[in-house]
Amino acid sequence: MEPQGTRLDPWIDAYAQRTQGLTASQVRALFAVASRPEVVSLAGGMPYVSALPLDALADTVAQLVRDRGAQALQYGSGQGDVTLREQILDVMAPVGVRAHPDDIVVTAGSQMALDLVVRVFCDPGDVVLVEAPTYVTALGVFSSYQCQVVHVPMDGEGMRADALREAIAALRAQGRTPKLIYTIPSFHNPAGVTQGSQRRAEVLEVARSTGILLLEDDPYGLLGFDGEVPRAIRADEADGVVYLGTFSKTIAAGLRIGWAVAPHGVREKLVLANETATLCPSNFAQLTISSYLATQPWFEQVKVFREVYRERRDALLESLESLMPPGTTWTVPAGGFYSWVTLPAGLDATAMLPRAVAALVAYVPGTGFYAPGAGGEHELRLSYCYPEPDRIREGVRRLAGVIETEVELAATFGSPTSAPVRSGPTAPTPDLA
Amino acid sequence: MEPQGTRLDPWIDAYAQRTQGLTASQVRALFAVASRPEVVSLAGGMPYVSALPLDALADTVAQLVRDRGAQALQYGSGQGDVTLREQILDVMAPVGVRAHPDDIVVTAGSQMALDLVVRVFCDPGDVVLVEAPTYVTALGVFSSYQCQVVHVPMDGEGMRADALREAIAALRAQGRTPKLIYTIPSFHNPAGVTQGSQRRAEVLEVARSTGILLLEDDPYGLLGFDGEVPRAIRADEADGVVYLGTFSKTIAAGLRIGWAVAPHGVREKLVLANETATLCPSNFAQLTISSYLATQPWFEQVKVFREVYRERRDALLESLESLMPPGTTWTVPAGGFYSWVTLPAGLDATAMLPRAVAALVAYVPGTGFYAPGAGGEHELRLSYCYPEPDRIREGVRRLAGVIETEVELAATFGSPTSAPVRSGPTAPTPDLA
Repeated sequence: MEPQGTRLDPWIDAYAQRTQGLTASQVRALFAVASRPEVVSLAGGMPYVSALPLDALADTVAQLVRDRGAQALQYGSGQGDVTLREQILDVMAPVGVRAHPDDIVVTAGSQMALDLVVRVFCDPGDVVLVEAPTYVTALGVFSSYQCQVVHVPMDGEGMRADALREAIAALRAQGRTPKLIYTIPSFHNPAGVTQGSQRRAEVLEVARSTGILLLEDDPYGLLGFDGEVPRAIRADEADGVVYLGTFSKTIAAGLRIGWAVAPHGVREKLVLANETATLCPSNFAQLTISSYLATQPWFEQVKVFREVYRERRDALLESLESLMPPGTTWTVPAGGFYSWVTLPAGLDATAMLPRAVAALVAYVPGTGFYAPGAGGEHELRLSYCYPEPDRIREGVRRLAGVIETEVELAATFGSPTSAPVRSGPTAPTPDLA
Repeated sequence: MEPQGTRLDPWIDAYAQRTQGLTASQVRALFAVASRPEVVSLAGGMPYVSALPLDALADTVAQLVRDRGAQALQYGSGQGDVTLREQILDVMAPVGVRAHPDDIVVTAGSQMALDLVVRVFCDPGDVVLVEAPTYVTALGVFSSYQCQVVHVPMDGEGMRADALREAIAALRAQGRTPKLIYTIPSFHNPAGVTQGSQRRAEVLEVARSTGILLLEDDPYGLLGFDGEVPRAIRADEADGVVYLGTFSKTIAAGLRIGWAVAPHGVREKLVLANETATLCPSNFAQLTISSYLATQPWFEQVKVFREVYRERRDALLESLESLMPPGTTWTVPAGGFYSWVTLPAGLDATAMLPRAVAALVAYVPGTGFYAPGAGGEHELRLSYCYPEPDRIREGVRRLAGVIETEVELAATFGSPTSAPVRSGPTAPTPDLA
């Protein structure tokens, strides 16, 4: 063991200002905890890749390396493999996105695409409008580029268009310029809600009329449980929307391949930024996906995933319904991986987490999905994507016990925090019906 | 065809200031040209991956997907797979780097590691000291983070330590703070030179005494042709050096897996930045490499690569020696992929390129390896890594013809540029002996 003193960081004064926004997310800190087998983790967003046809995938990649190894193992284009970009058009057809292969930039996961869009658009201090709550690592990107995040309230259909318009007007009245509207319209992470077609049209109209670029993040669009695929906002607006897609949930997250669909000028910038950041996306992963799409019934596999996640969603919702104490509310996701839970009045999700982990269940506290100080104290995210249904039921049972104990403690000794008491015990919260 | 008018970029006023440094590199523009089969490309730095044992690699990855698919296809740690990090210690043993697996951050290629180091350290306007010339896409990274690049002259042993010390003193006298010293000590890209052990000690001493972090980029360290492996600077200094490594040249570039070895505090920042940029490096690529290292004679394969590249280097040097007109000089690489050529007095490498391509040979003009306006007009990079030896000889024959014609034109009509005449016809340049 090194003495503690050597751990002092001699470079502490040399770091860039942007590192002040680089802090360990709660999701990250939970990985270690959640990996213990006795804990039911309702925390992570890991897709259930064991549902994949592993033998077929093994054959596909082996044949790829044998037949086209010299290409698969070589550097490729900074924009991504052209055949894969053509196939991505087919993958986007169900959400209604029509484009040219040249409009697509393939990246090392859609996280990298998100990073590059912000890199291309946002100077320090620029404002980004996001849902309340929003995707935790999108907040990480905005923070690392020193953006100001402004949350827009949601309701049961996601981002409220009227609130978005008001937020933009208020910002402009202060002389501030929003650069991006970041939204996850389908099966929202973490809120579990989905914008209907009318809401999408309203949000798009706000973006158009204010001249602000809409950044549409759509990792879950094909994973609706009733089989209907929400039409992407990008399907109705090509010049004012950058659309982000990924193979992480329809094939495999470990391949780290996503993409952006962007208007011509933006796309050119994204390709250059992509080359600067990574030279090019992995040909090995791209051609593996391309071969899989060409030889396997990929959309049938998406239906398998839907059925897996629908069964788990049902297990979660049935358990919540039968076990949660009064005053706890949650969203009812029609697809995707997550439900968003609001705790009974006075309970703090972050303070409760250690007690939940002691009871062998894990979740992600709500504050991680908001800019610092902007909310989430009484909320938490539950993921049903990874554990088997019986484990989910057991996890909810444990969590319900923890919440019950917390409610009793709060009733006896008062709230553990000074947070304001929220709306009544059984009504949904105003933001997340 | 769309009318030209629709190509005007409506977002032109919305881009971040950093995009002003995002311009298409000459290397990129050359990809389209170099891919035509009739052109001998001495331009790109593509490793010769066809020398890999493709059947064994195919079997390795197929077995990986069958046996450990649920791990290989899943999200992983933001720091990288722990087994692979242990194996990276073995891969670095020949260059003398000793570290703990916790000191390593695995990234989507070492390009991503370079991007993250600059992200973590450099505010706009911060100074980075680099060799003259230096790696083209490192310049792209520094530009995209709005760094000021200051070139340090080289000689036949790379970056001059005396010039480095003078440059730092001059900057500090102006009140400017250099954040990083970026160096490629072994088999330099593009200069083809290598720092001896004495030079490395001197450069390190400058970094230590001035308190500036040394960023050591070492993609080619194992590819020395005499079998001797230069000792990395990081081998003699753990706290003041960030070392970048990659599997792109020892296994395959298409896997896009590299790494950084960094002091404790820096490493923590890099992991967070890595998670923000990409969530995690690809488990699929990482575990493929890990399985390959565990089951294949990877160092024997490195020796195969060395022999392939040595033969090609010899073909290049012999052709240059016998064919180049007087006044052309070049470096003699002892490893790696590149030789750096200085043209006869008055010739401009960028202006000559279209004529070279018309003669069916391609190279990279020197200006791309300098900050804008900082040099390289009379220099160019030749790569011998990818074409077969006979093609290299044919390429040099074509290039020699182009240079001869240019020399004759310059003698008859005067220099096509107003550049100052360089040193005598057979002497090496002062910077790159």
